[in-house]
Amino acid sequence: MTGRLYGIGLGPGDPELMTVKALRLIQSTPVISYFAKAGRRGNARGIVDPWMTGAATEVPLYYPMTTEHAFDSPVYVSVLAKFYEDAVATLSAHLDEGRDVALLAEGDPMFYGSFMHLYIRLRDRYPVTLVPGVTGMAGCWSAAGEPMTWGDDTMAVLPGTLSSAALTEKLRGTDAAVIMKLGRNFAKVRAAVAEAGLLDRAIYVERGTMADELVMKLAEKTDSQAPYFSLILIPGQGRRP
Amino acid sequence: MTGRLYGIGLGPGDPELMTVKALRLIQSTPVISYFAKAGRRGNARGIVDPWMTGAATEVPLYYPMTTEHAFDSPVYVSVLAKFYEDAVATLSAHLDEGRDVALLAEGDPMFYGSFMHLYIRLRDRYPVTLVPGVTGMAGCWSAAGEPMTWGDDTMAVLPGTLSSAALTEKLRGTDAAVIMKLGRNFAKVRAAVAEAGLLDRAIYVERGTMADELVMKLAEKTDSQAPYFSLILIPGQGRRP
Repeated sequence: MTGRLYGIGLGPGDPELMTVKALRLIQSTPVISYFAKAGRRGNARGIVDPWMTGAATEVPLYYPMTTEHAFDSPVYVSVLAKFYEDAVATLSAHLDEGRDVALLAEGDPMFYGSFMHLYIRLRDRYPVTLVPGVTGMAGCWSAAGEPMTWGDDTMAVLPGTLSSAALTEKLRGTDAAVIMKLGRNFAKVRAAVAEAGLLDRAIYVERGTMADELVMKLAEKTDSQAPYFSLILIPGQGRRP
Repeated sequence: MTGRLYGIGLGPGDPELMTVKALRLIQSTPVISYFAKAGRRGNARGIVDPWMTGAATEVPLYYPMTTEHAFDSPVYVSVLAKFYEDAVATLSAHLDEGRDVALLAEGDPMFYGSFMHLYIRLRDRYPVTLVPGVTGMAGCWSAAGEPMTWGDDTMAVLPGTLSSAALTEKLRGTDAAVIMKLGRNFAKVRAAVAEAGLLDRAIYVERGTMADELVMKLAEKTDSQAPYFSLILIPGQGRRP
């Protein structure tokens, strides 16, 4: 009998925004694994910290250092593929011995993120249970206090890596939008939002639901600094009886 | 001192997919309110049922019977507006007496749904705390076991009420998609998915995470029946090292 892989969504950052199911599994699964930068505890491990009982074996998976390569460069792709293969071997060793493994995923496990890369390599070999989570974007629009979609609104989730022209076009073709992956794309994204005539409605949220969350109108943000946990919301304006 | 309004996301249906925060507030707030069809308990009340302590005053808000009117007809809009105003008066009576009120919302409170209509009428009068939840669509893609978005994928959330031409165009312009509000729009939506060349990738999910969930390839669904809690997923196919 092999072990079972649990893919556990941790929600947007506030440890209380984990689901009851995630909490139960984190407190009952013998092996807890999570991604982190080398030398760091990592955000996923931080979210579960208040709930850890100390009984589990912890298996951190440290990302390789890749800042010198672009995300779409062949070197980066091959370094990352090897990292995923090594992680699969690490987790398989536990699963083959019959130990269940809970692999943590910030937000929701099937919505971006590293979990899926291990999942597609493991799902045909072991039984898997997925535990959906509150997405980071839902944590951010909750922090902003802004209803995102009404009635028949459409919503687009867009990465800031898109070209300026593509961003503007897609923003014009949707009622509501979430723009993620700001970072070094921030100035381009802000210009595209303005070009689409949406600057007045746009909200910037940083680290939504976390202790140091920040919410402000995008129009009032004067610098171009945007950390990993930040995004821009364009709330919809649909039917409201 | 007035009471506080809590907007509580309940997640996609499985009671264990409520957040720890939602559970705590449901078990500690003196007034629990929820929407339901007249004569029914309603899905929201059903989700929290395993967690109710019996200590709270329950305030069901029964939707008016409106099946004889189209959603965008003036009669429907005015009937619904009156319903929301009456519900606001009902909840305000508790809040004005200093009692906190937990208003339940299936999925996430800021992502479609009735909660927002009361929220925008109450938020300037009372303190409000929003508790984000796992969306119905996340419950469905978790049930399907399909990663939805990879790397720089874009994702569109589309209502089935869009025209066939609009649906096809928007499906062609996105990497991943979620199509909601199927119901009587199902046959049109299915044709639009086929027209966009996406029938092979499309997954139909009914009542994801609930006891009687159903997951199947859209191409293999031969009837046109699609209940309220159903949607179609087009998973993205982005960057996968």
